[in-house]
Amino acid sequence: MDTRATFPVTPETKVHRQPARASYDRALAYSILDEALVASVGFVEGEQPFVIPMAFARWEDELVLHAATASRFHRRLAEGPRLCVTVTLLDALVLARSAMHHSLNYRSVIVIGRARELVNERDKVRALARLVDHVLPRRSGACRPPNTIELRATRVFALPLEQVSVKRRTGGVLDDEADLELPYWGGLVPLEQRALEPEPDSRRAPLGEVPPGVSHYDRGAFARAAQVEEVAVNGREL
Amino acid sequence: MDTRATFPVTPETKVHRQPARASYDRALAYSILDEALVASVGFVEGEQPFVIPMAFARWEDELVLHAATASRFHRRLAEGPRLCVTVTLLDALVLARSAMHHSLNYRSVIVIGRARELVNERDKVRALARLVDHVLPRRSGACRPPNTIELRATRVFALPLEQVSVKRRTGGVLDDEADLELPYWGGLVPLEQRALEPEPDSRRAPLGEVPPGVSHYDRGAFARAAQVEEVAVNGREL
Repeated sequence: MDTRATFPVTPETKVHRQPARASYDRALAYSILDEALVASVGFVEGEQPFVIPMAFARWEDELVLHAATASRFHRRLAEGPRLCVTVTLLDALVLARSAMHHSLNYRSVIVIGRARELVNERDKVRALARLVDHVLPRRSGACRPPNTIELRATRVFALPLEQVSVKRRTGGVLDDEADLELPYWGGLVPLEQRALEPEPDSRRAPLGEVPPGVSHYDRGAFARAAQVEEVAVNGREL
Repeated sequence: MDTRATFPVTPETKVHRQPARASYDRALAYSILDEALVASVGFVEGEQPFVIPMAFARWEDELVLHAATASRFHRRLAEGPRLCVTVTLLDALVLARSAMHHSLNYRSVIVIGRARELVNERDKVRALARLVDHVLPRRSGACRPPNTIELRATRVFALPLEQVSVKRRTGGVLDDEADLELPYWGGLVPLEQRALEPEPDSRRAPLGEVPPGVSHYDRGAFARAAQVEEVAVNGREL
């Protein structure tokens, strides 16, 4: 059995409610992480939970997070607290004939664990490049890399992808049989995140070309390409 | 001074990092809450934070959440724990000439507090209708309302909007002056969530018309309409 292909189910990651919608498949989790732009990072201070929206990236089998050394979150993260990082993609509105069967089609990943700080400068630089490339593939090679002052002002953390669960809803309306007779419309309304026309910085005409990938910005395509590249580079299917 | 217009700043809601991006304006917070489809709900079990994506709705000055009586979350929620509910809307990629000035334009709301359970049946029914109407205005009047069995299987909670902060980034690229000479493209790539063609339930030809609001589904417009309606009904500007 390929122990990499599936995440172990732990008390923290076990999905209790609607287990048929749960998955522990690594490739599925990575495709969702690679497509999402923002993560909701949960941590505890005292007894109070905080959930902060953050940019993030997957770097092989870890999630990269970063924080300014001046921030509250950085201080807490440096203590190595328990984290819960959740990303969610919305795919459709589900409009049922009954109120209670209204739903959303979505794909979500929940990552539980503790992050370690990347202190080695080479690792830090590479992780920060991953954050930029997560937004737009190959962008880190088409901008100025961080300088010493910027590196000093930023701390970078890596959360291992070990305790991970996926939960998603796909498919159509699930109305009760009796409700199908009701005179209400039922169906899906697919949702899509799309990019509009790029707006060049007005302070100065950009010297470079509009970067490739921006005009038909498609995060699903990026996620699929990342998967293909990983297999090519590491010779491994997840 | 109108004490309603601005949320008080508490130790839990004070934004430390980049305070210029923070706001405690009630109308701004409500417009973001009304536009978002999903909330990241953070709670603590033992010492472990959990962040769960959930449907939600604003109902006057509270957030409505609901959970099946069978779920882990419902059991925890019924204990009245400290919560942090965060919603995030993405508005643009910010592609700077330097890696470290790459960013996202976003609008986020963080709500801190404890939820109370709605036990009165009339309140429950109205709160559940709000959840449906949050997805599509007036939809609760165009579907079958919850029956007794469904009501019993669902618990509904309301989180008061008292400790609330907004954080957002707007505007263009913020490159260092020296970097403007670099031969890299800099600018914004606006992002938009849009609905595609509705897909009627194939199990049975829908008897009703495609609901109004679906064809040009525009959550920003819903949020603006909610604001106008609130002023009309309650005669109050936030």
